Amino acid sequence: MRAAVLFESPGTLRIEDVSVGQVGPREVLVRVAATGLCHSDLHHLTSTYMALPMVPGHEASGVVEAVGVDVSYLAVGDHVVAACRGFCGVCEWCLSGRPVLCERAGMRRGVDEPPRLYLQDGRGCSQMGGLSTFAEQILVHENSLVRIDKDIPLDRAALLGCGVVTGIGAVLRTAQVPAGANVAVVGCGGVGLNCIQGALLAGANRIIAIDIDDDKLQLAKAFGATDVINSSVHDAVQHVLELLPGSGGVEYSFEAIGRRETCELAFALLRKGGTATVIGVYDGNIELPGMRLLEERRIQGSMFGSVDFRRDMRFYLDLYRDGRLKLDELISERISLDEISAGFDRLARGEVTRSVVLFPN
Amino acid sequence: MRAAVLFESPGTLRIEDVSVGQVGPREVLVRVAATGLCHSDLHHLTSTYMALPMVPGHEASGVVEAVGVDVSYLAVGDHVVAACRGFCGVCEWCLSGRPVLCERAGMRRGVDEPPRLYLQDGRGCSQMGGLSTFAEQILVHENSLVRIDKDIPLDRAALLGCGVVTGIGAVLRTAQVPAGANVAVVGCGGVGLNCIQGALLAGANRIIAIDIDDDKLQLAKAFGATDVINSSVHDAVQHVLELLPGSGGVEYSFEAIGRRETCELAFALLRKGGTATVIGVYDGNIELPGMRLLEERRIQGSMFGSVDFRRDMRFYLDLYRDGRLKLDELISERISLDEISAGFDRLARGEVTRSVVLFPN
Repeated sequence: MRAAVLFESPGTLRIEDVSVGQVGPREVLVRVAATGLCHSDLHHLTSTYMALPMVPGHEASGVVEAVGVDVSYLAVGDHVVAACRGFCGVCEWCLSGRPVLCERAGMRRGVDEPPRLYLQDGRGCSQMGGLSTFAEQILVHENSLVRIDKDIPLDRAALLGCGVVTGIGAVLRTAQVPAGANVAVVGCGGVGLNCIQGALLAGANRIIAIDIDDDKLQLAKAFGATDVINSSVHDAVQHVLELLPGSGGVEYSFEAIGRRETCELAFALLRKGGTATVIGVYDGNIELPGMRLLEERRIQGSMFGSVDFRRDMRFYLDLYRDGRLKLDELISERISLDEISAGFDRLARGEVTRSVVLFPN
Repeated sequence: MRAAVLFESPGTLRIEDVSVGQVGPREVLVRVAATGLCHSDLHHLTSTYMALPMVPGHEASGVVEAVGVDVSYLAVGDHVVAACRGFCGVCEWCLSGRPVLCERAGMRRGVDEPPRLYLQDGRGCSQMGGLSTFAEQILVHENSLVRIDKDIPLDRAALLGCGVVTGIGAVLRTAQVPAGANVAVVGCGGVGLNCIQGALLAGANRIIAIDIDDDKLQLAKAFGATDVINSSVHDAVQHVLELLPGSGGVEYSFEAIGRRETCELAFALLRKGGTATVIGVYDGNIELPGMRLLEERRIQGSMFGSVDFRRDMRFYLDLYRDGRLKLDELISERISLDEISAGFDRLARGEVTRSVVLFPN
């Protein structure tokens, strides 16, 4: 099968012929229908902690082609979404309702077990997130998949595997925003837009979108933002205080980029007692003023929106059918696997929300 | 009446004759029985944001001597504790169960209303926290007092007005530590010891006390610590990992000092999904590693233990009567008002947990 392989980092993807291993007892072979390009993949293209070569990609949908002998959850022909975070089901995190923190979440790195992917020269190839969805097929643990109903279009369903649950989940699951709260979202890319529609679902009052790109802010309005601030033009903190007179800031803020200054901005936007939730991946330190913390402000991380895929998927599918979940609007372009590098270039330049690679089946 | 007055900051307290104003409609005049020396007072002695001259002190007990015409909550002769944080009862914070964040919490600064205290030369004198308890009498809003039963010794009751509720409240109210959790407490002064007994009340599993003073660590054991670490000798993070093999850290940590490095240590002690609660007042920035935040760690401030005095006092009084709340053991020494400066010197040197000034009545 064909896959996009990363040989060095920083580096670009090369389309290669790749073989998949034998289907293990609890493994499932999936024919990929669609896979989304996410900033997390882009991080690996510029610097990675994983063994190379590797096939990136962790947001996909497809159809089950084969199942291992011990697989009970899925059958051949099932439609599935690849879950950005697998779970073991037996560790204390899984058993305490936080499978997203699972110790054995399937982050296969091709070092301590036989590789599931092979290059034509016989070299093993590691799997990003135990998935590696930039490929025509994926061979993954059954706990890295979640079944969906067959009436859901697969190209849109792909987005349910990462960006949608990460953004909406941060609002509904991690922060548990109550109705009537004022919310600010810093960063209006794929995840930020989903924070915005999460805030809308939560019944938030003001939903203030902050970005430096007016096109993204327009899109933010379409997703439910009541107010937008271009922070390259306006002082975002000052503007929020003007939008919410006498409030001292928002009750809840979300950071959906992964930069030092935006994490600090999210905290600075909070009124007393408020909660900032950081979704973006930032591999450095952030600074917080101790005196503002003291007034019962809080900052917390959200991993993949604290998602529990098997619990949450029914909710997302119902929302989509009811017209309450924007999926179609998240897709900026549909491209082929051969166009994936150009797609990442556009993502890096901030020109697209989600590019989705479609595989002809 | 006699009171300890701060004329300049940095500076030392001087015992002066001070007059109190007329009792206003919702004010109460209290004959102070006992007042505790807290690190927050020490902060004002070295640098203050308040108008000087000022009488510090915000932890006290006493007996009601006079009440204003509109006071309904208290009567002459009632025993009371001065609450480190008053409340208005009508703002959104009070009405949403967070009176500690009250907008009009009675932080009288002597600038926008007639002073309640006067020096002999007629100059007004501001009230710390709307209280100013380093004095034979206090004239305060009725919402800055909480009634206690008369069987509770007043010297011990004084500590219920700040240190006890701040420490125990941070554990039970702010962080809401569940039974079975592993807890670390950084700093074993008056507030830290109360975090430890709060963790014991919560049914915590390991309660790990961290300090640089072996005497304080011995006291920590008496208050319920299961393990102690002298962080001037051992690497606290490494030691916690050894005490809790395979855990990755504690679920809950508390910072009860107010220093940059101890705030950062509290966060570094957390396992995935853990919560650090900062109680100490630190007027600078703290740094947090973004990648550790991402794993759903959280850091939050606790103001006076998120206390609601009128709700919580019954609980504390019952605990004390049942022998489940250590108050006697918190008092290192009983001194007179004239000895207050020497008491603060000992507090600054870390030689005492709580010095309590007793007034002869």
